[in-house]
Amino acid sequence: MTDTTTEAPAPPIDGRDHRRDAWATLQAVRAGGPLVHNVTNLVVTNLTANVLLALGASPAMVENIEEAGELAAVAGALVINLGSMSAARTEAMRVAALAADRAGTPWVLDPVAVGALSYRTGIARELLAHRPTAIRGNASEIASLAGGDGGGKGVDSTLDSAAVLDAARQLARDTGAVVAVTGKVDQVTDGDRTLAVENGHVLQTRVTGMGCSATAVIAACLAVAGADRLAATAHALALFGFSAQRAARGADGPASFQVGLIDSLYGLTEAQVLAGVRIR
Amino acid sequence: MTDTTTEAPAPPIDGRDHRRDAWATLQAVRAGGPLVHNVTNLVVTNLTANVLLALGASPAMVENIEEAGELAAVAGALVINLGSMSAARTEAMRVAALAADRAGTPWVLDPVAVGALSYRTGIARELLAHRPTAIRGNASEIASLAGGDGGGKGVDSTLDSAAVLDAARQLARDTGAVVAVTGKVDQVTDGDRTLAVENGHVLQTRVTGMGCSATAVIAACLAVAGADRLAATAHALALFGFSAQRAARGADGPASFQVGLIDSLYGLTEAQVLAGVRIR
Amino acid sequence: MTDTTTEAPAPPIDGRDHRRDAWATLQAVRAGGPLVHNVTNLVVTNLTANVLLALGASPAMVENIEEAGELAAVAGALVINLGSMSAARTEAMRVAALAADRAGTPWVLDPVAVGALSYRTGIARELLAHRPTAIRGNASEIASLAGGDGGGKGVDSTLDSAAVLDAARQLARDTGAVVAVTGKVDQVTDGDRTLAVENGHVLQTRVTGMGCSATAVIAACLAVAGADRLAATAHALALFGFSAQRAARGADGPASFQVGLIDSLYGLTEAQVLAGVRIR
Repeated sequence: MTDTTTEAPAPPIDGRDHRRDAWATLQAVRAGGPLVHNVTNLVVTNLTANVLLALGASPAMVENIEEAGELAAVAGALVINLGSMSAARTEAMRVAALAADRAGTPWVLDPVAVGALSYRTGIARELLAHRPTAIRGNASEIASLAGGDGGGKGVDSTLDSAAVLDAARQLARDTGAVVAVTGKVDQVTDGDRTLAVENGHVLQTRVTGMGCSATAVIAACLAVAGADRLAATAHALALFGFSAQRAARGADGPASFQVGLIDSLYGLTEAQVLAGVRIR
Repeated sequence: MTDTTTEAPAPPIDGRDHRRDAWATLQAVRAGGPLVHNVTNLVVTNLTANVLLALGASPAMVENIEEAGELAAVAGALVINLGSMSAARTEAMRVAALAADRAGTPWVLDPVAVGALSYRTGIARELLAHRPTAIRGNASEIASLAGGDGGGKGVDSTLDSAAVLDAARQLARDTGAVVAVTGKVDQVTDGDRTLAVENGHVLQTRVTGMGCSATAVIAACLAVAGADRLAATAHALALFGFSAQRAARGADGPASFQVGLIDSLYGLTEAQVLAGVRIR
Repeated sequence: MTDTTTEAPAPPIDGRDHRRDAWATLQAVRAGGPLVHNVTNLVVTNLTANVLLALGASPAMVENIEEAGELAAVAGALVINLGSMSAARTEAMRVAALAADRAGTPWVLDPVAVGALSYRTGIARELLAHRPTAIRGNASEIASLAGGDGGGKGVDSTLDSAAVLDAARQLARDTGAVVAVTGKVDQVTDGDRTLAVENGHVLQTRVTGMGCSATAVIAACLAVAGADRLAATAHALALFGFSAQRAARGADGPASFQVGLIDSLYGLTEAQVLAGVRIR
């Protein structure tokens, strides 16, 4: 994420036009309306559901052991977010991740506050065995999950996304997941290729659940993506971040910014996406 | 719910003026401020409370076994919403429904995603033994609860409300509850009489918890209603749906629409209700 | 809280300028970004986090027994809010309060609906043994916690804040906590001195979690406060209430009021605080 609000188009990279591809990904979500199953934290359930609905997906929040596996097996994608831990929710996470792995449901791990709190750090590492399709965190969380010292303070990172790029690449190679380190600029890597997303706005740091929302958008994009999951992850972050930039222009503060972000995501047009997405 | 925004008054039906009766119901909620006890899902707690406050009711969200029965016995009405299941919450639902039934507290069942997930389908059928006063769901949920194949996808219905009207009537006769099937047009039946509510807006499908909110509004109206619970249920859906229509006019997308809906519900005037409510 | 919107400055009392002191407290929160740990209710998690972020603090919502003690020991302040009880959350509350007391972390108790529900009344009294730094409730809750008959109806008070001032003073002397009774006018006492805060707006009674939000703001201010915790508590209530007054001017109803309150809190300037804070 970056607080630039310029929309001058970035030139195509690698012979690909990421802006046009991002628009295609958004169209696929809107057309397919993928069911996204979330085992997420208590703070962001409502926001996450509304972000997914605005995007065109169909959210379901199911976190009990009796149902989590049943739903994860049939969903288009699964989110596991560690922002609120409990013994019961941990069991549901295990059941859901296992079911997703077995059924081939793409799933995204959001290691909220991993590194800062020891219990969830252990759970996060254990869940890696169920082969997440993607992992999104801030620099502290990704560094900690990769085995280093993340230096996190609660849920907020004290590191820069570029500073942990080597750790992110290693984590991607070790797990087979696409790893996204979000920050002023988002770094997205599969261990081999790396894309930088330069969309976003600094007001995202003053609204709770912005990272969690980005994770859910990644899941929705992965539900409709083809083989290039690295690109789909970058598209998700760019679409969300660009909606934030658009919202910031009319905002009086963080609450009207959040309202505007969801409205903007809902209404994104082809012309806006082609002018605003910045992936390189 | 329907996306029409016209407000041409519907003619009185059956010698009754539903618009004037709906206004009387709203006035009774505002004057009485009924305590509405909610055992509801993790996604909509905040929204439900704010909708009830805007309406003039006094919400309480209590879902632990130590307190749920105590509160249900003294509340003006109870909501049991199956949107987030857990072993502990299931116990609280049983305790609350039993206490409401014994104390004569009107209560409303919202069978979220029943049919799509087998565990909660069983719980919903079991709770029917505690004689809900009303049941509100989409067409898939009501068809599933009545014993048929609802064809639901997560929380979203794939059926039309009119298509399941026979099932709804049968469910009403079997349980003694007023059954409301919400959709483009809402069908409300006690197994004998049926009312159709033609208020609402398509943006409601892009905001989470709109059905859950309607259920809570029904509970508040039942708390102050006299003997005609069919009419009170229809009034609730019309007042909520009409507020949605008014909100949609000024909305830039689903988030500003939600803000506007609550503001509109809070400020509804007699002239607006008489011009906008469409029950036939 | 009061619904006056005048901003004529109150004269300094006791030789102190509370308006300038309140601005200094706000600046200290913004500069320090204290980590505020919340064990709070299911309804207000998102709102509380956003209020704390708008204020400049760093919120964390952790309510599991495996992590609550670890976090409470290192946080800048802790909130324990009784609005949603469960057996597991009760254990986390005990662990967190104990850890805060041992580590010297200031903590605030919000006894939501104490008096109206017997289970939580017992838990609240038990938690007093862990020496809360401050207690904030409405008149019914404070009267009940002090041992009297609070006459509460669910979460809403039927008493006036001034009517329970003697009970509040006694509770403060018995527990060593600063006790804040919020209402039309907020009364803040340490058992010896008492400050009255005349900021706030009647629309706060039509939005859920306004009291809970005020409690969280108190915690953030206590995290950066020096020895005068009575003043810091009054500053918190005045800053929050004044933001509400500013928001009410542009609001169309309770939902736009809530959005405006958070935006206003985020953007408060020195000139606004000096003109608007009313503590006497």
